Amino acid sequence: MTIGRFITFEGGEGVGKSTQAQMLVEALRLRGLGVVQTREPGGTPGAEAIRSLLLDNSHDWGTRAEALLFAAARSDHVEGLIGPALDRGDWVVCDRFIDSSRAYQAGGGEWSDDAILSLHTLGSHALMPDITFLLQAPIKEVAERLHRRDGDNSDRIGGKPADYHARVAEYFRQMALSDAERFVLIDASGNPEEVHMRVMRAMAPFIGEGG
Amino acid sequence: MTIGRFITFEGGEGVGKSTQAQMLVEALRLRGLGVVQTREPGGTPGAEAIRSLLLDNSHDWGTRAEALLFAAARSDHVEGLIGPALDRGDWVVCDRFIDSSRAYQAGGGEWSDDAILSLHTLGSHALMPDITFLLQAPIKEVAERLHRRDGDNSDRIGGKPADYHARVAEYFRQMALSDAERFVLIDASGNPEEVHMRVMRAMAPFIGEGG
Repeated sequence: MTIGRFITFEGGEGVGKSTQAQMLVEALRLRGLGVVQTREPGGTPGAEAIRSLLLDNSHDWGTRAEALLFAAARSDHVEGLIGPALDRGDWVVCDRFIDSSRAYQAGGGEWSDDAILSLHTLGSHALMPDITFLLQAPIKEVAERLHRRDGDNSDRIGGKPADYHARVAEYFRQMALSDAERFVLIDASGNPEEVHMRVMRAMAPFIGEGG
Repeated sequence: MTIGRFITFEGGEGVGKSTQAQMLVEALRLRGLGVVQTREPGGTPGAEAIRSLLLDNSHDWGTRAEALLFAAARSDHVEGLIGPALDRGDWVVCDRFIDSSRAYQAGGGEWSDDAILSLHTLGSHALMPDITFLLQAPIKEVAERLHRRDGDNSDRIGGKPADYHARVAEYFRQMALSDAERFVLIDASGNPEEVHMRVMRAMAPFIGEGG
């Protein structure tokens, strides 16, 4: 019941992914499990160096170079950290993974989902999570959270207009609907403890606590 | 007869590519042609930043991440410099391009040529050169040149053993034989002026100087 699993958190910005990832990691460790907590883009020194290039505003990466850089960072992350942890039997909890590339790059319209997945095959042996929590919250609530966190940012989240984020959120939702085996849709509204309870209810069968 | 062409120089280390690229650029400019001289990996600020990551010894990139980083750098180079130059009608002379990825990565045995070319399609619209000069010299002569340039390096070229370089050279030769339309095999032995004369004889039909 307690072989290591690869768990990812996905969803738009400000939806509470890193908070929920952290809370899940603590809950698993309380149960005596070995857990590696990580995030994308980044997670290894090489991938963090690529992350810095991606976030460096002096480079205006095209969508093609950007997708290749994300795939390169993920390759380093999978080969250097995630793969070895799973091979040891550890659990891995990752804030964003391949589905973010699919939602932001294929969902953005310039890449096909097949192209993103073929990069993932070339770079990362097509490694997929065992469980993916897709956090969903009303766009208004997300904007309010980001406003509290980042200041006057309610119209543009991460520098992009609201309709872009609505498109990404819809792409996430469609992926989840088309792969119900792997995805767990989580209502991310309410306080962090309430959301965590929803995550732990879905985790119960995997940690031997009934379903 | 003088629309811009995309010309690349390929071959192993120490074979004289950058010298010959430089001499060809000067010869074309003497004929009044607009020429962009560039090199890989690099050629644009973004691609040079990726080049620095690739050459940074603190990162031990796996073959997959490395191939994706080369493809990302090439994408930035093609979209930011080579493509626009060709669209303007300029000539482009580039020291190394896609065939180096094919020879070093697919020739190294860990990637298939198809995988490298599919990355090139995803990243760079599968742009191929019009003319590729493959410079070839006896491995002994190359080792002597590198010894003069880099010091005691005659056994290991670029940190790799001689049989690795022999394998890469053979992969280059096979590519050239299977695409005789695009490749021009150049005997790179002798002094730079002699080699340049061989290059210019092959260029004659393209610059309206008879064949």
